[in-house]
Amino acid sequence: MNERDIIEILSCRNSEGRPDLLRGIGDDCAVIAGNGGQSWLVTMDTLVEDVHFDLRWHPPDKLGRKAIAVNVSDIAAMGGRPAFIFLSLGLPRQFDSAWLDRFAEGISGACREYGCVLAGGDTVRSREGVLLTVTVIGQMPADQVVYRSGALPGDEIWVSGTLGRAAAGLELCAGGGSQGDEGMKSLVEAHLDPQPRVVLGRLLAEHNVAHAMMDLSDGLATDLSHLCGQSGVGADVYAASLPSLPALHDAADLLKKNPLDLMIKGGEDYELIFTAAAAAGSRIAGIARQAGVILSRVGTIVHRQGVRLIVPAAGESEQKEVDISFAGFDHFPQE
Amino acid sequence: MNERDIIEILSCRNSEGRPDLLRGIGDDCAVIAGNGGQSWLVTMDTLVEDVHFDLRWHPPDKLGRKAIAVNVSDIAAMGGRPAFIFLSLGLPRQFDSAWLDRFAEGISGACREYGCVLAGGDTVRSREGVLLTVTVIGQMPADQVVYRSGALPGDEIWVSGTLGRAAAGLELCAGGGSQGDEGMKSLVEAHLDPQPRVVLGRLLAEHNVAHAMMDLSDGLATDLSHLCGQSGVGADVYAASLPSLPALHDAADLLKKNPLDLMIKGGEDYELIFTAAAAAGSRIAGIARQAGVILSRVGTIVHRQGVRLIVPAAGESEQKEVDISFAGFDHFPQE
Repeated sequence: MNERDIIEILSCRNSEGRPDLLRGIGDDCAVIAGNGGQSWLVTMDTLVEDVHFDLRWHPPDKLGRKAIAVNVSDIAAMGGRPAFIFLSLGLPRQFDSAWLDRFAEGISGACREYGCVLAGGDTVRSREGVLLTVTVIGQMPADQVVYRSGALPGDEIWVSGTLGRAAAGLELCAGGGSQGDEGMKSLVEAHLDPQPRVVLGRLLAEHNVAHAMMDLSDGLATDLSHLCGQSGVGADVYAASLPSLPALHDAADLLKKNPLDLMIKGGEDYELIFTAAAAAGSRIAGIARQAGVILSRVGTIVHRQGVRLIVPAAGESEQKEVDISFAGFDHFPQE
Repeated sequence: MNERDIIEILSCRNSEGRPDLLRGIGDDCAVIAGNGGQSWLVTMDTLVEDVHFDLRWHPPDKLGRKAIAVNVSDIAAMGGRPAFIFLSLGLPRQFDSAWLDRFAEGISGACREYGCVLAGGDTVRSREGVLLTVTVIGQMPADQVVYRSGALPGDEIWVSGTLGRAAAGLELCAGGGSQGDEGMKSLVEAHLDPQPRVVLGRLLAEHNVAHAMMDLSDGLATDLSHLCGQSGVGADVYAASLPSLPALHDAADLLKKNPLDLMIKGGEDYELIFTAAAAAGSRIAGIARQAGVILSRVGTIVHRQGVRLIVPAAGESEQKEVDISFAGFDHFPQE
């Protein structure tokens, strides 16, 4: 039983809708109809110590920021503004109060940065380790919400920033290599303190440019497969167009990893992936400048189902086409 | 550092409000201003295996129901209607898929019962044991919301149902005594499958009867201390007026516990406690009939701070007055 099976079991019995639930399970956020032309966005994510983070290298303030950021990223992925934060904090019987102070600083810093307020939550004892569940409620004009389900054949596929940074950063931390040069440090920072693309998501929604959008949390291959599944389409991704930092290739050498694997399967980049009509290219370039974010065209939406990676010919080998559908992170991989 | 200290550290740094957050940390729910005279209520609770529940005796469907019910109870405690459920489910690497099926049945049964829909959440791997975090969003007319902070000196204090059942039921389960007579079984059921007082809470709010209200989750002594603290008042509670089932006294005998201790310190009854003007007695009796719930007058709100239990003279001993402020459950008791 994998993660999608578990979600299927939980959701299929609960499909009787309410008319004010505009979108339930299956997108970055649930969408609830408000009044006055506004919709509410709701998302919830859990981080478990030693599954999602490691306190040996994750400073408490950055962990607090990250717990907020990964949820804010889901709000950004639909084009919304985050507003209210709810935090459930599980702590073991013995914990360090200085740690808690710095964690709380991270939470409050992130709240200020994203214009949110901590509005509630819960405090419980864990059996062992730190448990973090955050719910973020956001808001946006109802007619601007960007779903995963709007991709159309012929659309171009765009991603923000560069890929594989967080996955490489995690491997560097695990290998004790966080003392590298500036490039390596930026990979580690991408893992410790991700920056959700709130301004970019808002602009894309406001200008009605993105047909479908989501954030990259489980890796491009898996996340794009979700987007394509929801839209009833497929995708061709051009390996040569995937954006990466030079430091990613240095890190891949050091880690003896394939950099392309880090870019397509590595999770937690919290960049946005979206599709748009080919004619929208110049408007998208303008939005990228306004948001101060690099955007790259990485592929095309096609009729045929599945996500295909197209790797260019190198030396004597021919161009390869590889099916990478759902080739990303799964909490419950099938044996 | 106790539970209240932790909440203080988290909340004091995040006090800069948003005007649309009508109530943040410190009540049963956060209250968010909607449009059209409606407010949104939001609550979040986490249940951790072996801290909050024990799978040796907690059937999966009842655990699913309880994870929803304890949150729905917070919505009821302000007078609201639950609407949207978000579930974060943490499971260990190995788990039983039949268990998950029955758990999902419990979730969907509770959703139907309370008129809610499962709208989202998260699925993660835990280090060990089952982790459950639920967020419930409810709705109600903005001018009917009942806060903890409205109690006035001279108010009568009311509780619904009977007290100490869930605490006795938990002790019976832990002692392997769930095979008792019908009375004992009802205690065990109160622990396994609590019934939040949604109809009662709604009626009290709608008829504008309750000055202050909350649900009993950490025991009467602690919860009433919170209500009094928020209202800037104190309370006298009459031990002889506290409602209990005959089975509670049988169970207390069996468990060698003081039944009064179970009633004032026992958590998880999920009954409502509220205060109202003395003149409202007959209207409250009518609401109790309409909701099909027994309501008992158990004390009086006073000017003096603190919660005092008044135990009547018995035999040669005189009437006793005991300060029971915050004498309930704390996840992080001070050593």
